[in-house]
Amino acid sequence: MTQAIRSMMMSEEMIHKGLEGVLVTKTSICKVNGEEGKLYYYGYPIDVLEKYSSFEETSYLLLYSHLPNKEELADFTTKMRLARQISNPILEMIKTFPRDSHPMELLQSSINFLSGYVDHKIEHSAYCNCRQTLHQIAQLPTIIAAFYRIKNGLEYVPPRDDLNHGANFLYMLRGVVPDKEEGDIMDKCLILHAEHGLNASTFTARVVASSLSTCYCSISAAIGSLYGSLHGGANEKVVNMLKEIDSVQDVRPFLEEAARTKRKIMGMGHRVYKAMDPRAVLMEGYLKTLSTKKGNSVNYNLLKEIQKVFREMMDEKDKAIYPNVDFFSGAVYELLGIPPTLFTPIFAMARAPGWLSHILEQRQDNRIFRPKALFDGPLDREYLPLEAR
Amino acid sequence: MTQAIRSMMMSEEMIHKGLEGVLVTKTSICKVNGEEGKLYYYGYPIDVLEKYSSFEETSYLLLYSHLPNKEELADFTTKMRLARQISNPILEMIKTFPRDSHPMELLQSSINFLSGYVDHKIEHSAYCNCRQTLHQIAQLPTIIAAFYRIKNGLEYVPPRDDLNHGANFLYMLRGVVPDKEEGDIMDKCLILHAEHGLNASTFTARVVASSLSTCYCSISAAIGSLYGSLHGGANEKVVNMLKEIDSVQDVRPFLEEAARTKRKIMGMGHRVYKAMDPRAVLMEGYLKTLSTKKGNSVNYNLLKEIQKVFREMMDEKDKAIYPNVDFFSGAVYELLGIPPTLFTPIFAMARAPGWLSHILEQRQDNRIFRPKALFDGPLDREYLPLEAR
Repeated sequence: MTQAIRSMMMSEEMIHKGLEGVLVTKTSICKVNGEEGKLYYYGYPIDVLEKYSSFEETSYLLLYSHLPNKEELADFTTKMRLARQISNPILEMIKTFPRDSHPMELLQSSINFLSGYVDHKIEHSAYCNCRQTLHQIAQLPTIIAAFYRIKNGLEYVPPRDDLNHGANFLYMLRGVVPDKEEGDIMDKCLILHAEHGLNASTFTARVVASSLSTCYCSISAAIGSLYGSLHGGANEKVVNMLKEIDSVQDVRPFLEEAARTKRKIMGMGHRVYKAMDPRAVLMEGYLKTLSTKKGNSVNYNLLKEIQKVFREMMDEKDKAIYPNVDFFSGAVYELLGIPPTLFTPIFAMARAPGWLSHILEQRQDNRIFRPKALFDGPLDREYLPLEAR
Repeated sequence: MTQAIRSMMMSEEMIHKGLEGVLVTKTSICKVNGEEGKLYYYGYPIDVLEKYSSFEETSYLLLYSHLPNKEELADFTTKMRLARQISNPILEMIKTFPRDSHPMELLQSSINFLSGYVDHKIEHSAYCNCRQTLHQIAQLPTIIAAFYRIKNGLEYVPPRDDLNHGANFLYMLRGVVPDKEEGDIMDKCLILHAEHGLNASTFTARVVASSLSTCYCSISAAIGSLYGSLHGGANEKVVNMLKEIDSVQDVRPFLEEAARTKRKIMGMGHRVYKAMDPRAVLMEGYLKTLSTKKGNSVNYNLLKEIQKVFREMMDEKDKAIYPNVDFFSGAVYELLGIPPTLFTPIFAMARAPGWLSHILEQRQDNRIFRPKALFDGPLDREYLPLEAR
């Protein structure tokens, strides 16, 4: 078929805006069973990983598609903990990055800068150097914490190698080692966010990887996508919403007003889950634990009341809209002493192994992403000389 | 339809690998008429823009979808020339970036870092701040030239504001103002590469923009995509190929050997053009001019012989494979004194206005890109304790 005939056959109805419903790849990384509220990483249910695994082991699973044995886990953990250390040029970048700017672009920038220090000889094979350097997973927490502390006039706290990923992050933020329970909760929060199929940022990572660009370029691009307000940031909006509601008694009027004005309730509903998001169930548990521990149940009580009243309202309309992971996560982070501006960066550091997993999978059976656009505009416009315009 | 039924209906044959042939948007930016070898930016034929316009005016066209009047062009040019200056933190990044690393990741990194200095209040409107700061177009040449000079132990040459985009780039590389002819040829090379529809990097820019991320994040991601060996770098490979051929007499045996071993001839053929790429025609002209001017026609003669013999070989097979823009551009850059490692960065600096144009168009009728993947893997795997693995 000639190009001319192909072009004639294209019409506006054939445009797949946002690629909704379009299959672009096979995958064995992530399965979301939205009907039953189940989520799997490489076939392991999320609640099992949450209960028995660590973020480090889950990262191994996502990079190698199988769980490590004892020796593999020890090697991997050692390598990743050593890779937490950031270099002086990166620290310099963090120091000079404008303090009132958002750390997401700093993260994107740093990942590319790091790449300059890496030998990319093996970039194009399935044995990507992301598995060797572990930069993208190991350094993001250090960069986030360093920026946060420097921005607030505090001294940079270098990483430790005797703490798990979550605990070390809290340590670098706070400057003191968190107790085991808090460190473990942080680590589990990261497990819950490590992977979730083909969302916009993961698709971005695969698109960039498809030109056989490096894993650094791909991860950096994915961070840029996650920064968009249609993608990351929902848990920050939940926390902001809570600030608008004075007390549990005000929840019903707030939600009724929202229904009247068609205001979206943040943290409710999910494109895929038509049952409770399994991550939300687990997040609620952490929130309950931390609320008791910290003697501050304000947000927990508000969220539970919102959940209850919202459920009643949805039952009336027979709508299957349930809390998603963002509903509880912001409140969990707040009780861990983390400011809202770091919520999306934390999403990025948690998702890094998932992104890498997709980059590795993309390369195994790659074709460069090059869709088509339907041209709709004037042609052969007359170029008037500047004086005649 | 429930998710379960939808999932059952999906099969492997429905996967659009690389999104080949899939329409993802309407566009009025670029039209490639591959049958007739024509290319248009916003309806203006490329040969008209090449003859009468400048890279600065073409950038305006791509950002505003119409040609500027006298005052608009003067304002735009002033703003863009002022924006050429890089800040000290960026210069510091350039200085600390490993000298044997590829500048593409430095470019990607710098664009995000720059973003930290920008007020993103208007990031989500069609009136993007890329039109205000012009950073992505104005600063890339400065960063590329600064890295090149510093890497080679030369002093950084700050930009001038009395030279056009192409001439200023050569000036920053060389440290001396190029003559008008060379400056204009460089400027025209940039015009020819400013836009070319939905290739992988432009699609990447639109995907990142679709989450309502900033134009900086989107451009940075596009640079990352262009860095991949399946996307940028073809003209570098042409120049390398020329080094393999000793003389014009060796061309025919070289091509016959290539045909026998099914080796791809770089710079030949194009996914879209089934006639001569109009940019190749223009590039050939610059090469001829520069070869005469510099008294060095070695590459020109080799390329013309390759073109001739290749044409005869294709005619025998009745195949419509012609030289593309990459066939001549590397040789042009070499005669302008530009080393091959800068060819892909130059592609990026030339394509920046095209990418921005697509980002702006994407936002006008946006939907976030979120395709689907077909799950194909085991589920409910048993989590064995570490000791039992």
